[in-house]
Amino acid sequence: MLYFDSDYLEGAHSSILEKLVTTNFEQTPGYGNDTYCESAREKIRQACNCPEAQVHFLVGGTQTNATVIDGLLKSYEGVIGVDSAHIELHEAGAIEFGGHKVITLPQEEGKLKASEVEKYLTKFYGDESFEHMTIPGAVYISHPTEWGTLYTKQELADLSAICHKYNLPLFLDGARLGYGLASLNTDVTMQDIAKYCDVFYIGGTKVGALFGEAVVITKPNLIPHFFTIIKQHGALLAKGRLLGIQFDTLFTDNLYLKIAKNAIEKAEQLKAIFKEKNYKFFLETDTNQQFIILEDTKLKELRQKISCSFWEKYDDTHTVVRFATSWATPQSSIDTLKEIL
Amino acid sequence: MLYFDSDYLEGAHSSILEKLVTTNFEQTPGYGNDTYCESAREKIRQACNCPEAQVHFLVGGTQTNATVIDGLLKSYEGVIGVDSAHIELHEAGAIEFGGHKVITLPQEEGKLKASEVEKYLTKFYGDESFEHMTIPGAVYISHPTEWGTLYTKQELADLSAICHKYNLPLFLDGARLGYGLASLNTDVTMQDIAKYCDVFYIGGTKVGALFGEAVVITKPNLIPHFFTIIKQHGALLAKGRLLGIQFDTLFTDNLYLKIAKNAIEKAEQLKAIFKEKNYKFFLETDTNQQFIILEDTKLKELRQKISCSFWEKYDDTHTVVRFATSWATPQSSIDTLKEIL
Amino acid sequence: MLYFDSDYLEGAHSSILEKLVTTNFEQTPGYGNDTYCESAREKIRQACNCPEAQVHFLVGGTQTNATVIDGLLKSYEGVIGVDSAHIELHEAGAIEFGGHKVITLPQEEGKLKASEVEKYLTKFYGDESFEHMTIPGAVYISHPTEWGTLYTKQELADLSAICHKYNLPLFLDGARLGYGLASLNTDVTMQDIAKYCDVFYIGGTKVGALFGEAVVITKPNLIPHFFTIIKQHGALLAKGRLLGIQFDTLFTDNLYLKIAKNAIEKAEQLKAIFKEKNYKFFLETDTNQQFIILEDTKLKELRQKISCSFWEKYDDTHTVVRFATSWATPQSSIDTLKEIL
Amino acid sequence: MLYFDSDYLEGAHSSILEKLVTTNFEQTPGYGNDTYCESAREKIRQACNCPEAQVHFLVGGTQTNATVIDGLLKSYEGVIGVDSAHIELHEAGAIEFGGHKVITLPQEEGKLKASEVEKYLTKFYGDESFEHMTIPGAVYISHPTEWGTLYTKQELADLSAICHKYNLPLFLDGARLGYGLASLNTDVTMQDIAKYCDVFYIGGTKVGALFGEAVVITKPNLIPHFFTIIKQHGALLAKGRLLGIQFDTLFTDNLYLKIAKNAIEKAEQLKAIFKEKNYKFFLETDTNQQFIILEDTKLKELRQKISCSFWEKYDDTHTVVRFATSWATPQSSIDTLKEIL
Repeated sequence: MLYFDSDYLEGAHSSILEKLVTTNFEQTPGYGNDTYCESAREKIRQACNCPEAQVHFLVGGTQTNATVIDGLLKSYEGVIGVDSAHIELHEAGAIEFGGHKVITLPQEEGKLKASEVEKYLTKFYGDESFEHMTIPGAVYISHPTEWGTLYTKQELADLSAICHKYNLPLFLDGARLGYGLASLNTDVTMQDIAKYCDVFYIGGTKVGALFGEAVVITKPNLIPHFFTIIKQHGALLAKGRLLGIQFDTLFTDNLYLKIAKNAIEKAEQLKAIFKEKNYKFFLETDTNQQFIILEDTKLKELRQKISCSFWEKYDDTHTVVRFATSWATPQSSIDTLKEIL
Repeated sequence: MLYFDSDYLEGAHSSILEKLVTTNFEQTPGYGNDTYCESAREKIRQACNCPEAQVHFLVGGTQTNATVIDGLLKSYEGVIGVDSAHIELHEAGAIEFGGHKVITLPQEEGKLKASEVEKYLTKFYGDESFEHMTIPGAVYISHPTEWGTLYTKQELADLSAICHKYNLPLFLDGARLGYGLASLNTDVTMQDIAKYCDVFYIGGTKVGALFGEAVVITKPNLIPHFFTIIKQHGALLAKGRLLGIQFDTLFTDNLYLKIAKNAIEKAEQLKAIFKEKNYKFFLETDTNQQFIILEDTKLKELRQKISCSFWEKYDDTHTVVRFATSWATPQSSIDTLKEIL
Repeated sequence: MLYFDSDYLEGAHSSILEKLVTTNFEQTPGYGNDTYCESAREKIRQACNCPEAQVHFLVGGTQTNATVIDGLLKSYEGVIGVDSAHIELHEAGAIEFGGHKVITLPQEEGKLKASEVEKYLTKFYGDESFEHMTIPGAVYISHPTEWGTLYTKQELADLSAICHKYNLPLFLDGARLGYGLASLNTDVTMQDIAKYCDVFYIGGTKVGALFGEAVVITKPNLIPHFFTIIKQHGALLAKGRLLGIQFDTLFTDNLYLKIAKNAIEKAEQLKAIFKEKNYKFFLETDTNQQFIILEDTKLKELRQKISCSFWEKYDDTHTVVRFATSWATPQSSIDTLKEIL
Repeated sequence: MLYFDSDYLEGAHSSILEKLVTTNFEQTPGYGNDTYCESAREKIRQACNCPEAQVHFLVGGTQTNATVIDGLLKSYEGVIGVDSAHIELHEAGAIEFGGHKVITLPQEEGKLKASEVEKYLTKFYGDESFEHMTIPGAVYISHPTEWGTLYTKQELADLSAICHKYNLPLFLDGARLGYGLASLNTDVTMQDIAKYCDVFYIGGTKVGALFGEAVVITKPNLIPHFFTIIKQHGALLAKGRLLGIQFDTLFTDNLYLKIAKNAIEKAEQLKAIFKEKNYKFFLETDTNQQFIILEDTKLKELRQKISCSFWEKYDDTHTVVRFATSWATPQSSIDTLKEIL
């Protein structure tokens, strides 16, 4: 069976495992107060060109989104995001569990447009009874988006401008950040992201780590007592060094970007194969996720040999499925896919 | 100045005030354990033709919605409502404060259609990863809706059927219930509502009381420990008899419906005037709220003499405003309105 | 039957009812934006000698405590109170419902001592892992306390000093504030309370109003968006003027204090009677609540004629009960009590 | 420097790391739906002699406590625990963040006595106004306790009996369960725990795993939709197999208990050394944590060479410190300790 279900099917990049093995019996303090974490933090600050950034390591994406958003918002505030946002649809109500509304705006190819944010805020504060409503307190975007699409540098700059005009921190979910940065069609760098966002995270789980997300707070003291907030969310890893070691490895010799490029190369090949075979794209993206429309009978047949993930029903007889490549996708998988198709 | 802003501009029906005055120095136990509350409960059970119903009295609408919904849902569940629902838009995130998502479906003239609920639930449980999402746990509707429209008996029956198919309690927000029941164009009675809904409330604040909403749980034990849940929400009135006395009065000699009829009569007159004067309706309803589109300059001019409430911007030069009549609207207000227009 | 169960057995002072009746058909804007609320706010600011204070009106005590405390605390903070605090024991977990821990310290006659607060904070910040614990974010006291006792001016000054040293707002629950201020043995005035507390509330429910608590925020902007927080808690009364009218009346011609004095006079008589009859006090206080230890058989006998409230079991054969007088207690009740005893 | 600070200073048992390395490039479905998790679940069910148990894997202790307790409680319920419970003191208010109160009872050597629970419940339900209070909904204990002490089989049976009498699920926090089971002075087995508890967890983080806690729900369907609750808490690990592989390894050939025994052996040696050198014990336990009272000057001197963890101030000139051994403590550390002392 060939698996293209997701970008978290395998373990970790070999150099991470090696480092875990060689450091295994070292004794370090817990909770991120070890030298590996400190080293990883410093390398990330450099990669972001943001020497004053605060860097915290968490375990997974939903956890990170909930912890950061709860940290950013006051109790009466909500977070703005697109209606296709991961926090809105696929995190089991973790934001609401923390007491906050997700204020949804229409997406455009999965993206939040600055103009939509401005339109919403103008209308909101133009309403005579806005104080009876959830006050917007932060803006959430994903890069790449849930649909594998990418913001341009100009789009990020525009979002940042409208956010700052209204004093709303801009938070970027980078669960697949590596695949965005490694895309062949992007003008956005890690430094750009650090420049335009108030908080963002660098996804490890989907880009070479066993698990782990590195939260970068580009404005110091934006979230006071964030350590305690992490603990309160059950998100503080006892053996914090496991995260430090992984991110230290990923940010040594540019490994993070290098392995992300593999996913992009394989995704480009995969797209070419589907096109050649005249498959219909629901969405063709510049990152590691491709969305194909399949007849249900065809899907059933394919799933004998290829595993891909259900995205949504297209119509009564068709289904949209997602094919994801990753840092670990071998050439042989692409070759076998070609044969099967 | 003539006020048509809302249906809670005045105090209470005179017979309520009289009763408050004559009972003022009686000593009664608190928290609803008094004879006035018990009498009111019994009268409401009779009016609903639901002898086994549990009746609780709360102070206001947002409070009631949050307390009931928190009582109905398990921690991981959300409540389904239309995107124009009061709980979604105008309660400052009170549902999310309790930890729950409002799952929004499209409205049709402010109403939730059974077919939309079915479509949503079919899609939801057809999604292979539905367990990663907020589980729907109850359905919320308003009658009259936020737009002043009314469900038909058949629409309620259909909603009830789909809810019970999926084991979802149906909760009806009756903040303006009297005006729905008194409408000239409705086939829905209080008994129908008690028949089709698992929980609903009879609005007092907007229909003759100083304040107060009577929650009717038509299925006993649907919400265990509801008393404690009310207390936990800060919604337990110490001098509970104030609510008992008001609802006992409103449900004596059919007062509730009688006074509601006044609002409908005045609304019908108001509609006729606006039509006669060729005003453009945004929404013409069968209840006490009418929505008119006004040129902004005209609105500014009118507001010198008439106060009405902002609903939303229609376009760059027009605004939708709401005119509400109530149990207390005197004929003289309608006459003066006619003169001014 | 003679009732001494609580101080909220009757309705409201007659002058309040009269005012409600005479203003009943006036049309006013909702949510506290009316002239009665504005007038009441101004009178309260004057009574507190605190012209910059923000005054908000809420309906009940548990609601007020939860709304204010949620407004004061950040999401990771808890509130310090004594282990006998109302918020700890008798509010059904309303503070925890809002996401916050009540950090309990030992009480001394129901009071929180500044020295206990200092000891706790010193230990807390001296703990190497304090960041793994709930950060203290505010201090809650009641005056009179849940046991009817009173802080001295010096005790309030000391609490205020330690709170400000640690940047913790001091919040005073004044559900029975009138009975504290009217006590024969107190050196604390309303102005003192406004001086030493960052927030406090003036209880109306138990001191002459039908319902209502006036929150006084002595430091402007201490709680941004408090209006929205009130709404989010379901604590915003639609017909806000009902609260304005009541507090405007209570703060006209010093009515609040005058009627509170009645409770104190009657309590002093009641104490004298119990002493004369050699009843055993569990706690003899300077306010309107007196705690008596009764043999269970005696209690059963007395309850044929007198209703009082269960406080706690004293031992296997004795029970502590509370006798409360109020603004409304007539001389005849005291006289009858004397006869019965 | 010699470290005795905690039992999570090192990585994982070598056989776990080996297994992670050999399986690294296998492709498995996420979220615990892989064969390693299934195998681990089965082995745990067997070790517990509880074939119908549901087993879920989470990452850390605070996370597990909050997720399980939120799953067990209804919104208006609290959890009973001792005042020294980890959930009360050292989890940054994670239980309150979920909306629930920790109802604290006095501890006896860190343990909760069935008699205290019974006394509390009798008093609670004997209070005429118990419905105004937080309803107890579950009981939480730790084994070993936060103080390293152990329940006897009889004590567990008694707790279980009182819990079931009141229909309260009994939840056991087994963050250090291995060290309890491996103790030289215990009559409690894993099967006993499964028999007496409704839910418990087997700690991996502190007993040989990189991270991970295995939640065992001994009554099927006790917590409906627990998967979604885990996701909502941000506690669902994408690469769930990492947990499956670790627990599968720990429950193969009894590895979990075997390695736990090392901590006990070393702790016994450590106790002997401290006794021999006439150090004063604050608490001498049968598990891997020992509590010593040191003069502050002595502590400062020792900390030049030995790291141990601050427990609490004993008095002005003494401090209680904790020495913890673990599965990984080598004989050489004990020998060096002896030399230094």
